[in-house]
Amino acid sequence: MPHAFDPGSVAEPFRSLCMDYPEADVYVPDQFRVEWGPIFYRGRLDGSARVVVIGQDPAQHETVVRRVLVGEAGRRLQGLLAKLGITKSYAIINTFLYSVYGNVKAATARDARLIQYRNRWLDALLIGKKVEGVIALGDAAETAWLAWKKTDSGKTFDVAVAALTHPTQPESSSNGDKKKLADATKKLLENWNTGLQTLSPAIQHPDLATPLVLYGETWGASERPAIPEFDMPPGLPSWMHQQDGWAARLGKDPKAKRRNITINVPTGIIG
Amino acid sequence: MPHAFDPGSVAEPFRSLCMDYPEADVYVPDQFRVEWGPIFYRGRLDGSARVVVIGQDPAQHETVVRRVLVGEAGRRLQGLLAKLGITKSYAIINTFLYSVYGNVKAATARDARLIQYRNRWLDALLIGKKVEGVIALGDAAETAWLAWKKTDSGKTFDVAVAALTHPTQPESSSNGDKKKLADATKKLLENWNTGLQTLSPAIQHPDLATPLVLYGETWGASERPAIPEFDMPPGLPSWMHQQDGWAARLGKDPKAKRRNITINVPTGIIG
Repeated sequence: MPHAFDPGSVAEPFRSLCMDYPEADVYVPDQFRVEWGPIFYRGRLDGSARVVVIGQDPAQHETVVRRVLVGEAGRRLQGLLAKLGITKSYAIINTFLYSVYGNVKAATARDARLIQYRNRWLDALLIGKKVEGVIALGDAAETAWLAWKKTDSGKTFDVAVAALTHPTQPESSSNGDKKKLADATKKLLENWNTGLQTLSPAIQHPDLATPLVLYGETWGASERPAIPEFDMPPGLPSWMHQQDGWAARLGKDPKAKRRNITINVPTGIIG
Repeated sequence: MPHAFDPGSVAEPFRSLCMDYPEADVYVPDQFRVEWGPIFYRGRLDGSARVVVIGQDPAQHETVVRRVLVGEAGRRLQGLLAKLGITKSYAIINTFLYSVYGNVKAATARDARLIQYRNRWLDALLIGKKVEGVIALGDAAETAWLAWKKTDSGKTFDVAVAALTHPTQPESSSNGDKKKLADATKKLLENWNTGLQTLSPAIQHPDLATPLVLYGETWGASERPAIPEFDMPPGLPSWMHQQDGWAARLGKDPKAKRRNITINVPTGIIG
């Protein structure tokens, strides 16, 4: 069976953006895992994107796959896009090129070099293109969006925008407490339902015309679809996009953990 | 500083070859680590290759980088190519798409589907192109070459060929015995010197005109150059192509080991 793959950042201006990017002088190593390299995007760079998404920062699965939002947060986003009828025509970048280590200082996030580089991505994805909706996932992404909106190209750009709760905020805010997790999930999905109601009328050219079905109190199984194979580099095994939890940062102390990514093929794949 | 990267297998016929490839029915899982996906090539797919190399099979570093011959064997090959003045104009494939697990049975290696697919790569890299030399690394690669030479396109194709000892044969044949390793290295480099003398006059269009300097009894430091960044996918950290030994298959038993790839950033990279 043929395996579709993402052709990559071969056309300008994306080619240059993937060659020349902010490094450790901008993304300082006490706040970012610069040692794993930048992770740039996922989705369509050919001008076909109808929705542009801004996420936060890449984690270990993204570092292996070299595409953003391929873990659980990515699946939840994929489900959100599907509710808008968007199954292929999206482009996703992150607020930060590198994985956040600890906390990002305000001065770092405000660094003009960091913002200007990200704005070049947004210019490339939005200006003169066919985008009908923008989604910002989490506070940092909303700040990134607002920074672009202040630029000359952003100021005059009119598009439906939904600044939404980050897809894995329920997990990160509930610290293993099941009741808190359920409450935070419900709250997130209310927030996403509001966002869907803003975006849905604006998405005039979905991949698949779909009546809007809002979320219930938690994610249904079909609301966390796999990351499509056509978003992946060539040759990746199917479990890398169909499953999550196959990569972890392991080590006896924070320093060892920072140096490590451990990949285990999920159970059930080998014999 | 700009980071060059490999644009990938975007043009035909390479695009189709990276979409539709032999899977577990051909590369049987008791002989190949099919669960990690196929690793296709490294180097130029744009017709600029002057030398085509056939290696054996990918290991753990190749699986992370998704390019062939990026570990120690790759560095030694890089040095061999440099002696021919070839610093960029090469294309490398492997005999096998997947990492060998244990031994490959003769019947598997002879599977017409496996051979025909590999021959399509060789056709694409050789026929009507500018290749002036072919290098086969190890016995399996030589067998792969001879299988192509039996095809209609291979039969009539005239090119300088060197079937050489595999770059890490000294390590795999000496089992930690230093004397054996030194002897095997010396013997390998004699074999490579013979190959260089065959190839050197044939390489009429090197990247860098270079007087032929043969190997001594072991590799000099400059004879194991780093894998060029322009062979890598975008965004990979420099240690992934400048260093080796950062990925291992770890586990308490063969089954756990087979499921695992553990990556550790080399020492000296993080603070």
